[in-house]
Amino acid sequence: MYREEIKVLDCTIRDGGLINNHYFTDEFVRAVYKGVSEAGIDYIEMGYRSSREYAPPSEFGDWKYCDDETIKRIIDGIESNTKISIMVDAHRILDQEFKPVDESPVDLIRVATYVKDIDKALAAINKFHDLGYETCCNIMAISAENEFDLTEALDQVAKCPTQTVCVVDSYGYFFSEQVHHMMELYQKHLPGKRIGMHCHNNQQLAFANTIEGIRYGSNLVDGSLYGIGRGAGNCPLELLVGFLKNPKFKIEPILKVIQDYMIPMREELEWGYMIPYAITGSLNQHPRAAIAVRQTENKDKYVEFYSDIFDHLE
Amino acid sequence: MYREEIKVLDCTIRDGGLINNHYFTDEFVRAVYKGVSEAGIDYIEMGYRSSREYAPPSEFGDWKYCDDETIKRIIDGIESNTKISIMVDAHRILDQEFKPVDESPVDLIRVATYVKDIDKALAAINKFHDLGYETCCNIMAISAENEFDLTEALDQVAKCPTQTVCVVDSYGYFFSEQVHHMMELYQKHLPGKRIGMHCHNNQQLAFANTIEGIRYGSNLVDGSLYGIGRGAGNCPLELLVGFLKNPKFKIEPILKVIQDYMIPMREELEWGYMIPYAITGSLNQHPRAAIAVRQTENKDKYVEFYSDIFDHLE
Repeated sequence: MYREEIKVLDCTIRDGGLINNHYFTDEFVRAVYKGVSEAGIDYIEMGYRSSREYAPPSEFGDWKYCDDETIKRIIDGIESNTKISIMVDAHRILDQEFKPVDESPVDLIRVATYVKDIDKALAAINKFHDLGYETCCNIMAISAENEFDLTEALDQVAKCPTQTVCVVDSYGYFFSEQVHHMMELYQKHLPGKRIGMHCHNNQQLAFANTIEGIRYGSNLVDGSLYGIGRGAGNCPLELLVGFLKNPKFKIEPILKVIQDYMIPMREELEWGYMIPYAITGSLNQHPRAAIAVRQTENKDKYVEFYSDIFDHLE
Repeated sequence: MYREEIKVLDCTIRDGGLINNHYFTDEFVRAVYKGVSEAGIDYIEMGYRSSREYAPPSEFGDWKYCDDETIKRIIDGIESNTKISIMVDAHRILDQEFKPVDESPVDLIRVATYVKDIDKALAAINKFHDLGYETCCNIMAISAENEFDLTEALDQVAKCPTQTVCVVDSYGYFFSEQVHHMMELYQKHLPGKRIGMHCHNNQQLAFANTIEGIRYGSNLVDGSLYGIGRGAGNCPLELLVGFLKNPKFKIEPILKVIQDYMIPMREELEWGYMIPYAITGSLNQHPRAAIAVRQTENKDKYVEFYSDIFDHLE
C-alpha cells in the first residue's frame, strides 16, 4: 500500500507506559527516539502530560508528565525529522503547563476523551491550537458508545480547529466491517479532517484493522514497537512499516530496537495476545478485568474468567 | 457473523505436529478430541497419513501416519459428532493404506499439493472419492504462484469430484484485499464447490484473513487451539469461535484445553508471532529460513536475518 499522505505515529513510550506506570529509562527512550527517527516515522508519542495533583509523582515515572525539559533531555544530540507528540486526558486537566509551541519541543498534542467529556476535550483543543500546536482528538472506547451520542460528539468536533480525529478501538473489539463503518461515519461527520486509527490487539486484529482504516482513507496510523501497549498491546510498528511501501520508511532501525530492547523487556513486562484479553475483546468489554486477573495466581484460569465476565454481562 | 453453512475444522494435531515431528501423547490428542467435540467443532484433523518409506518411523510420531487403528485408539469411548480428517501430500503418495470409508474412522481426506503436482492430487482425490470419503484439495503456497498457472490448476480441480477447495496462505503473506481476490478467483473457477480458508499468522493476520474469507463466502475455515502450528501458527480457534455466532459452538471446552494443555506446552514448543516470521511473511517467502534461525543462537538477530533474506531476493 502506498499513499504519500499516510503518516505513522509511534506510541511505544506512551501506550507502553500504561503497563509500567511510565517508568522507562532515559537510555530506552533515547534508543526508541533514535530508532524511529532513523526509520522515518512521522511522529513519536512520548507519554502523557498529566497533572501532578491527579497523578502523584511518587507513583509514576517521567513519561506520565512529559515536561518540556524531560523531553529536551532525551532528544538532545539526536538527529531527527520525527515530530513529537504527547497526550492529555480531557477529563483530567488541572495544572499542567503548556508553553507556546515555539518554546516547546512538542509538535502535536492528542486529547484523549470519552464521548461524555467531549466539551472538555474541545476546550483543551482550542487552547492548544491557540498556542500553535497541531492537535488531534482521540475519542476512546467507541465500540461501547451509543452511536447517536458518538455522532453528536463528532458533529461538535467538526466545528473545532483540530486537524485530526482518531478512530480508537480501546477494547480491541472491532473487525473489518466495523472499522469500515466507523471510517465512513467519521468521514461523513468530520468533513475536511484527517482521520487516524489507533487499534488494540485483544483479538489479534490491530494490524488488520489498521490496514482496513488505511483502505478506507485513514492517513494517521498508530503503531508501537513489537506491539507494546496496555493489555494485548497495539498494532506492531514493524508490521505496519513492512506493509507501507513508502520508501521514506526503513525497517532495519525498528528491528534493531526490538532485538536490543523489546525482547529483553518482554521478559520483565507482559503484553501481547493472551486469552483473558481475547475474552474481553470478543465480548466488547474494557480490558481492566483481564489486566487484573493477569496479576493473580488465577491468570491462566480461562474457563473461570470467561464465566465471571459472562455472568457480569447478564 | 452467523451463517449456518459455515463449518470449522480444528487442525491442532495436524499443523501442530509440524513443530514436534507429530509426537503428541495419546492423553493430549484425546483431550483435544474431547474438547473440540464438546465445543461443537465440525471436523478435527488428526495429522498426515504419510508413507513410512518417505517418512521413517524412527523420526516421527504416530500422527505422521494416522493409521485407522491409531485413530480408533484415541476416539474410543468419547462421545462426539465431530468428523475426522486426515491430510496427505499429493507428491508423496506411495504405500499408504486407505480402506473404504465404512471400514475407517476417517470421514474427510484433504489432499495438500503444489500447483505443479495438481495431477497427482487429482488422482488421489478420485481414488479417495471412489472409496467414499469426503475430499478437499489444498493448493499450498499460492501467494508465490504464477496466477495463470494457479487458474489452470483450479480449472482442472473444477472437473474432479472434490467437494471443497481451500485457499491456503502458506507464507502468511496475504492481507484482506488479496484474500478477497483469491476468494473471487476460486469461486469463479470452481462453480458449485465449497471454498475453504487455511491461514498462517506470520503477520498476525490469520484470524483477520479467515474473517475476510468468511465475508467473501468461505464455508470451511481452519483454526487451531491457541493458534498452534508451524512457525507463527494458524488462526486461533478460540477467536474464531468467539466471532461465529452459531449457537452450536461452545467456547468453554476450548478454553479448558488451552489452559490445561496448550499453556504448559508453549513452555516446551515454540509457535506464534515472532519477528523472523513477520519478515518472511511480509516478503512473501517460505518460513523455512525463519524456522531454521529460531533453532540457532542468532534467533533474535533480526537485523542480520532481514539482511540475509533481503539479499537473497535480489
